[in-house]
Amino acid sequence: MRAAVMYGAGDVRVEDRPDPKIVQPTDAVVRTLAACVCGSDLWPYRSMPAADTGRPMGHEFLGVVEETGGEVQGLKPGDLVVTPFTYSDNTCDYCAKGLHISCRNFGRYGFDGVDGGQGEAVRVPYADGTLVKLPVAADSPLLSSLLALSDVMTTGHHGAATAGVGRGDTVLVVGDGAVGLCAVIAAKRLGAERIVLAGRHEARTGLGREFGATDVVAERGAEGLARIRELTGGVGKAIEAVGTRQALDTALGAVLDGGTISRLGVPQADQVPMGPAEFMRNITLTGGASPARAYIEQLLPDVLDGTITPGRVFDQEFTLDRTPDAYRAMADRQVLKALIRP
Amino acid sequence: MRAAVMYGAGDVRVEDRPDPKIVQPTDAVVRTLAACVCGSDLWPYRSMPAADTGRPMGHEFLGVVEETGGEVQGLKPGDLVVTPFTYSDNTCDYCAKGLHISCRNFGRYGFDGVDGGQGEAVRVPYADGTLVKLPVAADSPLLSSLLALSDVMTTGHHGAATAGVGRGDTVLVVGDGAVGLCAVIAAKRLGAERIVLAGRHEARTGLGREFGATDVVAERGAEGLARIRELTGGVGKAIEAVGTRQALDTALGAVLDGGTISRLGVPQADQVPMGPAEFMRNITLTGGASPARAYIEQLLPDVLDGTITPGRVFDQEFTLDRTPDAYRAMADRQVLKALIRP
Repeated sequence: MRAAVMYGAGDVRVEDRPDPKIVQPTDAVVRTLAACVCGSDLWPYRSMPAADTGRPMGHEFLGVVEETGGEVQGLKPGDLVVTPFTYSDNTCDYCAKGLHISCRNFGRYGFDGVDGGQGEAVRVPYADGTLVKLPVAADSPLLSSLLALSDVMTTGHHGAATAGVGRGDTVLVVGDGAVGLCAVIAAKRLGAERIVLAGRHEARTGLGREFGATDVVAERGAEGLARIRELTGGVGKAIEAVGTRQALDTALGAVLDGGTISRLGVPQADQVPMGPAEFMRNITLTGGASPARAYIEQLLPDVLDGTITPGRVFDQEFTLDRTPDAYRAMADRQVLKALIRP
Repeated sequence: MRAAVMYGAGDVRVEDRPDPKIVQPTDAVVRTLAACVCGSDLWPYRSMPAADTGRPMGHEFLGVVEETGGEVQGLKPGDLVVTPFTYSDNTCDYCAKGLHISCRNFGRYGFDGVDGGQGEAVRVPYADGTLVKLPVAADSPLLSSLLALSDVMTTGHHGAATAGVGRGDTVLVVGDGAVGLCAVIAAKRLGAERIVLAGRHEARTGLGREFGATDVVAERGAEGLARIRELTGGVGKAIEAVGTRQALDTALGAVLDGGTISRLGVPQADQVPMGPAEFMRNITLTGGASPARAYIEQLLPDVLDGTITPGRVFDQEFTLDRTPDAYRAMADRQVLKALIRP
């Protein structure tokens, strides 16, 4: 099969790889219908040391089950399925709590002999626990929004859910990437009345407004903070969808005492400023890596009936062979999120 | 009147001070029946630079209303009252949310011309908003437990409440000071099934067991962590009642992924280790300075009917003139918490 492999910073190649086969009886092989490039794929794209052995890329995809191992019970060839961005058994103590991202059998696509999602097919471990069946046809116009459940939409939802967003809330979303925009969708879905989106890429913040942002703040740093304070008088909940210190500082400055900051951007630093001042202010820091699997079924009905349309974050499609162009376009911020059709 | 004043590290004096008088129409003057020394009073006791003008000390007391300002409506001379450790108007937006510690008219005893609690009488600003009437006689044997509502018991409760402790939980409490012990009471009261108390002062951990701790871990660092993990397999909620990096590391190491750490000890550092690893683990950091006023009425019935007995943390009484001895005994860890009777 053909699949995208990264060999170093800026070096993504689409090449022939062995066709995936069932290895464990809990595996399934999925023929990919649609995949995408994640913001987190851009980290190695910017920094990976050159290597002779490449790393299969991609962890968001949906497709059709082609073959199942002997112990797979809930899936059969022909089923259309979407995967969360990590695989999990859905039976361990963490999965039982809805924390699939910490599954005792957790694993990542592209590692440990498992294919990446940016290819023609993928061997999916713990297929029963991982994959979610989609009640639509393979040519459904909903595919892009269903694909968004693989990561960005369920991640955005994790931010709103862990921040405790509810009816009437004023929420700040820091970051106009695909996750930030999906956090806007999620905050609105959970009843937020006012949603301030901090971002300065106009096409993206424009989409954010369509998703439900009531205000956009393009300024950064102290100026941005002053604007957020002026607009809202301070927010009760903030979703930080970047991961930089500046984004966290914006969230910390914008929340009222007693407020909650949910982080969706992987923090770039080991230490964060939650010292005596934040203690006196009773600031809560929550969020983290999304347990996407826990949320797919929750969000699915709203995608199916068109209540939410997270697939709109995909602003350009690429064929599999053009995956390197997709990386380049996203790294250059010409494309918000690239959809790949093998 | 006589009152305790600190002039520098190790230098607490009991001296004559002006009798408090009504200054604002929202003030009340309270004649102190019982006060105490707080763990936080020991910080300046260890580090305050010598000064000519001393600082009136103490922020936990109960007593009898002696006089009220013209706008005070809910109190009258003769009422027995307890104060939270800060004063607040109980009407602003923060107070309305139960976050009295961030009251728009917040203030601290011993600052800005307000008396400290370790003295014969105190002028209490925003008396209607601050003071809570106690339905007992001035010679009630419950006075020490009612006094604990001023700070340590409401602070311990803040830890358990913000950690989200509920029925059946396994909770770690780090720290065997009066706040940690009250956090044990609070965790048990909210239904925790297993409460591990990390502390190595045997008299204190013994009291912790009587309050509801099911296990005590005396070891610190990696050894203590291994013991907690061995006992519990990891905890869902931790209450950190010390403020040191070691205590936070113990909490971080003990909680399961998805767990919550509530801080009650004022952090000694401006930065805390909530980086990529804690992000991947979905650790929540919450807690902070307790809005004691919000909790006094909630906890009062349980004190009145003897369900909780936080007053047991007071292990020695001192007359007001012996307040310097009370500081010394607490600083030397000979006394857990000193009760002062003016």
